[in-house]
Amino acid sequence: MALLNDLMWRYATKKMNGQKVPKDKLEYILEAARLAPSSSGLQPYQIFVITNKDLLSQIRVISNDQSQITDCSHLLVFAAWDGYSYERIGDVFLRTVKERGLAENAMDAYHKGLWNLYEPLGRKWQSEHSAKQAYIALGLAVAAAAEQKIDATPMEGFDKDKMDELLGLEKAGLKSVVILPIGYRDEDNDWLLNLKKVRTPREKFITEL
Amino acid sequence: MALLNDLMWRYATKKMNGQKVPKDKLEYILEAARLAPSSSGLQPYQIFVITNKDLLSQIRVISNDQSQITDCSHLLVFAAWDGYSYERIGDVFLRTVKERGLAENAMDAYHKGLWNLYEPLGRKWQSEHSAKQAYIALGLAVAAAAEQKIDATPMEGFDKDKMDELLGLEKAGLKSVVILPIGYRDEDNDWLLNLKKVRTPREKFITEL
Repeated sequence: MALLNDLMWRYATKKMNGQKVPKDKLEYILEAARLAPSSSGLQPYQIFVITNKDLLSQIRVISNDQSQITDCSHLLVFAAWDGYSYERIGDVFLRTVKERGLAENAMDAYHKGLWNLYEPLGRKWQSEHSAKQAYIALGLAVAAAAEQKIDATPMEGFDKDKMDELLGLEKAGLKSVVILPIGYRDEDNDWLLNLKKVRTPREKFITEL
Repeated sequence: MALLNDLMWRYATKKMNGQKVPKDKLEYILEAARLAPSSSGLQPYQIFVITNKDLLSQIRVISNDQSQITDCSHLLVFAAWDGYSYERIGDVFLRTVKERGLAENAMDAYHKGLWNLYEPLGRKWQSEHSAKQAYIALGLAVAAAAEQKIDATPMEGFDKDKMDELLGLEKAGLKSVVILPIGYRDEDNDWLLNLKKVRTPREKFITEL
């Protein structure tokens, strides 16, 4: 019941207290995200871990002035590939076959087939597809944080174009997708802390066929 | 280290053995998905749990004949809202304020603001946004399954239009997004079981600013 208990413990912390998350717990959270499954194992995203105070202040301005941006310990920015390319996919598959001790051409047919599938779908579809994979990693980062009793608040309410500009993501072929401040709840000042967690009832959420 | 160990244990099982997952473990996995965070708490998705053999056979045909579809114990189909509406959002927020014992109009301003934001973005954007939220729940379902030593293989390789038709999703205002067969690995016949898990190295995955 560990995971369910962790998910019951966590909530979208609205007010954080500035306390620092120890390095080992931060690394644990990042490692959970790194181990997340993704479509064809491409992991078409990266994580930016921000602690620079000036940068956090600038990000807060483009994030509806949400206080967690500057009161968190670390701000995680999930940035997904802005599109697939034959080379990008090839780099991942080459690493895969090398680490597995397989022949360099072992994934060639899969590589070509995947690119034949993705290329005609266009860069808009490709970047949305990459972004979806990042949400899996986001979910696992949230679970890992809760296991470590670290608060984490997934946020989409920021100006993505301005974030990309601030972090120089365009030249890295990335687009910001979702952000996750991690830190500690300010128990005396968080209006959400004591409100009941509400979810869709099971009978409306699940259909058995 | 429980979650990291679970994530190291799991892999995208390619061959399942047909063994049944006990009801309590299935419910545990569904509950983890139900507790997933989502944007504004809307949970704009549902899960279909399929065990009907005829239906599974039909789904296998539209899923590149992947064997896990019929060798799994239960097939979870994540289906996201095909768009937002003022009423859909309102239903969730009304349930929220009632369960929290707040005034019925307590979320009215937020409700209007959110709809003003989402409406002009159009139904295509809305359905993609809903789909992304479902991927968070997918990640937590995978983690919950691994914790219970249940195998689970996220899959996108299926014909979404045909899936929607098979499950009658259009009239429910839903679109299939991703599927997750859960069950048990066939240890003697899974080519992927003993291959090394490969991930982007930390130094390429994480940037600290």
